[in-house]
Amino acid sequence: MSNQKLFNVAVVGATGAVGEQIIGLLERRNFPIAELKLLSSARSAGTKLKFKGKELTVEEATPDSFKGIEIALFSAGGDVTKALAPHAVEHGAVCIDNTNAYRMDPDTPLIVPEVNIDKVSEHRGIIANPNCSTIQMVTALKPLQDRYGIARIIVSTYQAVSGAGSRAIDEMLRQTREALAGNEVVPDILPVGSLPVKHQIAFNAIPQIDKFQDNGYTLEEMKMVRETKKIMGDESIDVTATCVRIPVVYGHSESVYVELKQDYELEDVKKLIAESPGVVLVDDPAGQRYPLATEAAGQPDVFVGRLRRDLGHARGLNLWIVSDNLLKGAAWNAVQIAEYIAIENE
Amino acid sequence: MSNQKLFNVAVVGATGAVGEQIIGLLERRNFPIAELKLLSSARSAGTKLKFKGKELTVEEATPDSFKGIEIALFSAGGDVTKALAPHAVEHGAVCIDNTNAYRMDPDTPLIVPEVNIDKVSEHRGIIANPNCSTIQMVTALKPLQDRYGIARIIVSTYQAVSGAGSRAIDEMLRQTREALAGNEVVPDILPVGSLPVKHQIAFNAIPQIDKFQDNGYTLEEMKMVRETKKIMGDESIDVTATCVRIPVVYGHSESVYVELKQDYELEDVKKLIAESPGVVLVDDPAGQRYPLATEAAGQPDVFVGRLRRDLGHARGLNLWIVSDNLLKGAAWNAVQIAEYIAIENE
Repeated sequence: MSNQKLFNVAVVGATGAVGEQIIGLLERRNFPIAELKLLSSARSAGTKLKFKGKELTVEEATPDSFKGIEIALFSAGGDVTKALAPHAVEHGAVCIDNTNAYRMDPDTPLIVPEVNIDKVSEHRGIIANPNCSTIQMVTALKPLQDRYGIARIIVSTYQAVSGAGSRAIDEMLRQTREALAGNEVVPDILPVGSLPVKHQIAFNAIPQIDKFQDNGYTLEEMKMVRETKKIMGDESIDVTATCVRIPVVYGHSESVYVELKQDYELEDVKKLIAESPGVVLVDDPAGQRYPLATEAAGQPDVFVGRLRRDLGHARGLNLWIVSDNLLKGAAWNAVQIAEYIAIENE
Repeated sequence: MSNQKLFNVAVVGATGAVGEQIIGLLERRNFPIAELKLLSSARSAGTKLKFKGKELTVEEATPDSFKGIEIALFSAGGDVTKALAPHAVEHGAVCIDNTNAYRMDPDTPLIVPEVNIDKVSEHRGIIANPNCSTIQMVTALKPLQDRYGIARIIVSTYQAVSGAGSRAIDEMLRQTREALAGNEVVPDILPVGSLPVKHQIAFNAIPQIDKFQDNGYTLEEMKMVRETKKIMGDESIDVTATCVRIPVVYGHSESVYVELKQDYELEDVKKLIAESPGVVLVDDPAGQRYPLATEAAGQPDVFVGRLRRDLGHARGLNLWIVSDNLLKGAAWNAVQIAEYIAIENE
């Protein structure tokens, strides 16, 4: 590997919840890095972060930050991506973007490596990383799509507060302490930082993630609908989602009903999922084993269990899908794409 | 009302989470009581409880406890009901049972007053109170059944720990303190007290409520399936449930997909629900208003919101249904039935 090509890599949003995970993964995966540039907003610039024993200073991200950069990983919000990614592309970088900015752009591939890595080559400089709740669902359902076809998906989510960023984690822990002490619980950020109404997340379930759209669904729900169709390459799949925030720190759980196009045997489905890349079957009712957010936290895989035939529809199947929303749901999926790009460009 | 008939009432399981709520409701509703007898296991006998300013001593429940009792409210577990309710009936009492013991017995009416109070008269001494997660769902869906017919229900629940009793609440609060302090979290009771494997509930979501059945569903899930058909009086309704415990103290939330038999207008459905007894419409996306467990706690009603047309199926409708599992889900539904019995026997 002495002749392995090394890459100049930038991480935009280096001080955020996802950026931190990306840096950790680049280190642990021993990503072939020549130079690592850590970028952030002006507010966080100057922060010092460790990478492979060396201290790096986070710099403010500007259009000129990307000179010489070959791979740029963005997770600093859609506005930052829109403002800076085109400059990075001009400088010759491939951008892997964790935000919603380009996901539904027809010229931007939306990639989950286990599902549609073949589409990466269609990029024009930007590759979009899907929404966290979408990634884990399509990773688990892809083998079913390939074998049986999927007609319909109805999903209800149980999403961790880390999906709303580090400040939302802090808020949830603070509220929990307030509630345990019998004090007034003061909501400050959730459900949506930029909206006026706040709700308690400690010991609660909030059926709003992101802003409401005109059709009564939230943006998070519509992301699951649109992104699933795009990633699976089938606009005919009916998808309905209800996205809910619950008091969990790391790990999204999903109750998924899927209607297949062909008849199935439950044992075949279990075998198929157990053998699929990136997916771990945890399904032993007698032993009370099923996926749990606390056990998925810190793991790169998607965990699937509670597999059972629908009681009404012969081609209906119920699943419980859990994954670490900051890893496979964000940082790990992005680094997987970066690793693919690196190998392709060796 | 000076000639109002007064009843001798027994509460079995008086020291439990539901029993406590029943006693509070009998007092606040000014239920026509001649004598109130508080009963429990031998372990809790001797406990002193207040009722209308008087101190009452809880007695051990035995077959002879029911002499002279006219209305007996049971919430001390299925085994206690099975052992004692037949004796109460022999002594002439009408039993309103909060446990699973008689719910699916064809000779026992399973009652949610807003849905099927007309069936009460068919009782042979025992009237069953449905499972908490079922009660709030059928209360919300009954007006839709009457107007449009219901073909199918797919529900995912977000259930509070109080549904597993006072000890489960204590466990969740203790685990939360342990986790916040960075200490090891020790599971002790949940998900099922009588089963060997325990899981952390603090900052987690556990997809197991009650024991697994041979078909891969839990008993809680099968309760929702069977009880919904019985209460709604329609065995043809397809019901599938995924029941999940989350770190909430009071208030079950439910993500419900329902497929109606006739086309509907969303505004008509909202109006219908807003006008239905026992149901409160909380549905204002622009104002970020929807039902929340923390707001439903302590309230007798079933709160419904997030109403939206399914994106794939024209007759599909999604709802978010929240209610206090100890009140409408248990104690309040039982006291409603008792009030009906009292009026019928005046």
